[in-house]
Amino acid sequence: MKIGIYGYGNLARGVEAAVAKSEDTELVAVFSRRDPKSVKTVSGTPVYSAESVTGFAGKIDVLVICGGSAFDLPKMTPELAKKFCVVDSFDTHAKIPEHFAAVNASALEGGNTALICCGWDPGMFSVMRLYSRAILPDGGDCTFWGKGVSQGHSDAARRIEGVLDARQYTIPVQKAMDAVRSGNIPEFTARDKHTRCVYVVAKEGADKARIEKEIKSMPNYYAEYDTEVHFITGEEMEKNHSALPHGGCVIRTGATSPENKSTMEFSLKLDSNPEFTGSVLLACARAVYKKHKNGQLGCYTMLDIAPAELSFTPRERLISELL
Amino acid sequence: MKIGIYGYGNLARGVEAAVAKSEDTELVAVFSRRDPKSVKTVSGTPVYSAESVTGFAGKIDVLVICGGSAFDLPKMTPELAKKFCVVDSFDTHAKIPEHFAAVNASALEGGNTALICCGWDPGMFSVMRLYSRAILPDGGDCTFWGKGVSQGHSDAARRIEGVLDARQYTIPVQKAMDAVRSGNIPEFTARDKHTRCVYVVAKEGADKARIEKEIKSMPNYYAEYDTEVHFITGEEMEKNHSALPHGGCVIRTGATSPENKSTMEFSLKLDSNPEFTGSVLLACARAVYKKHKNGQLGCYTMLDIAPAELSFTPRERLISELL
Repeated sequence: MKIGIYGYGNLARGVEAAVAKSEDTELVAVFSRRDPKSVKTVSGTPVYSAESVTGFAGKIDVLVICGGSAFDLPKMTPELAKKFCVVDSFDTHAKIPEHFAAVNASALEGGNTALICCGWDPGMFSVMRLYSRAILPDGGDCTFWGKGVSQGHSDAARRIEGVLDARQYTIPVQKAMDAVRSGNIPEFTARDKHTRCVYVVAKEGADKARIEKEIKSMPNYYAEYDTEVHFITGEEMEKNHSALPHGGCVIRTGATSPENKSTMEFSLKLDSNPEFTGSVLLACARAVYKKHKNGQLGCYTMLDIAPAELSFTPRERLISELL
Repeated sequence: MKIGIYGYGNLARGVEAAVAKSEDTELVAVFSRRDPKSVKTVSGTPVYSAESVTGFAGKIDVLVICGGSAFDLPKMTPELAKKFCVVDSFDTHAKIPEHFAAVNASALEGGNTALICCGWDPGMFSVMRLYSRAILPDGGDCTFWGKGVSQGHSDAARRIEGVLDARQYTIPVQKAMDAVRSGNIPEFTARDKHTRCVYVVAKEGADKARIEKEIKSMPNYYAEYDTEVHFITGEEMEKNHSALPHGGCVIRTGATSPENKSTMEFSLKLDSNPEFTGSVLLACARAVYKKHKNGQLGCYTMLDIAPAELSFTPRERLISELL
């Protein structure tokens, strides 16, 4: 399977690392909006300009689009789905139906197959929410994130006057997780489920009390949570907080009868969020490749993908070895 | 969706309880090999003789076959798949390919759809082994069972001379689970992964030392494990060990790059093993119903089923609410 990567940041390097771990895939081209001469790939794969991608139609089986959900993907994925089978990791939950419709129209127009919102949330966590609700309809579930770095919250803290650098960890609240496991599931507020912990490198002479107050009172990002702020040096940031770990879990407890309950739980612990997301994207590229070969065109999500489609192992071996 | 249940034991009562929790299904008939007049269903659903099932062709959308894997299902499922869309929970791992081939031939012959080996292992645990291997090809995984009651091991202990009743709990070894989570996965022996704990009610005057020795040395069941044997009274058995709890987990850790690892973990905690298995069977019946409506005939396993097929929630709502 010939893979192309469109966009070359952290997530793209995650996909590149996944290709290196996978026997059935080959990375043939990386496309960047920057000057291709200025971009060096980890694997040595050649870099081409973003505009030159159209010349690769027919030479790439699946194009993995590694752009941001806010501005890049809403344009890129529908555009590229006209020419290529594509996979993306669009994750703006509220705008998924709109994105789905646009990509579906383009993919059908171009005779291609697309799989959007791949990763872990949306992605594997969505899949687990669906399995657990289909199997245990009379129950409640909750998704917890962390402990891990949230880029969005780190960026928000970085925009505050006097902040040189910031790193935010999302931390799930143990008591809330235990409540879901027990089946006694209250109406959680945001504060009940997660706490936030921010490490800040402040400018010399900056008013730390003001910075702390501004972070803790920032609406949508911090005000709705119990937040800790710690000031550290640039060296400490570099040494202790340069990785991008993440994780989380989906827990559902439901009644199977008046007497009995069942709990289904799926959890992830990731040293590198972008590398795991890249690994999911590559598995999803396999599903796209298979669906396209079967004439299944248009847009799909991971909810529509049978587990076997993510693997290149023949069905007979899956049945005898994994079932 | 009109459901029939063929066979009426613990698992069938689990399916019956699942129908009661599900808005989209109706239990129309139960078939038993015993005298129908002697069988009372929990829900009051009418009971018919096993032979009369053929008269129900066209009146039942999916027949859930609740027989044993050793003797019943290898005959029942291929036979019934000629007349009905069927679901079963066949779980003799070594004989799955053979069972699959037989059911597939019958279902194709009858123009029906079949889904076999549904439950949690094989079933949801198989699904999780597949997801985690497809996403993290460079790694290792392990499946742990328990803490829970194993019927097969309980029955084996019960066959020993002087044993009136026995209940066996399978218990996973914490150290082994932690090793898989850390990514340092040795070649486990059976003993490394699970211990066994047996509660025995002995006949009055029976030689307890001999019973304990016979249990602990029984090949295939106990000899390969560290086993504890506890003698208790019939009253204690009734009071403390009459439920059928179970559970377990599938853990896989894999490298996403030379520097980083990811761990995917799926766990179940079940007050009632047959009720949870029944809930999975009912969700699988939905997938069979949908596949048959789409003209997808023949035999499938849960590895071939997209998560969305298990749910009757329309795709648009799944996308907007779960993704």
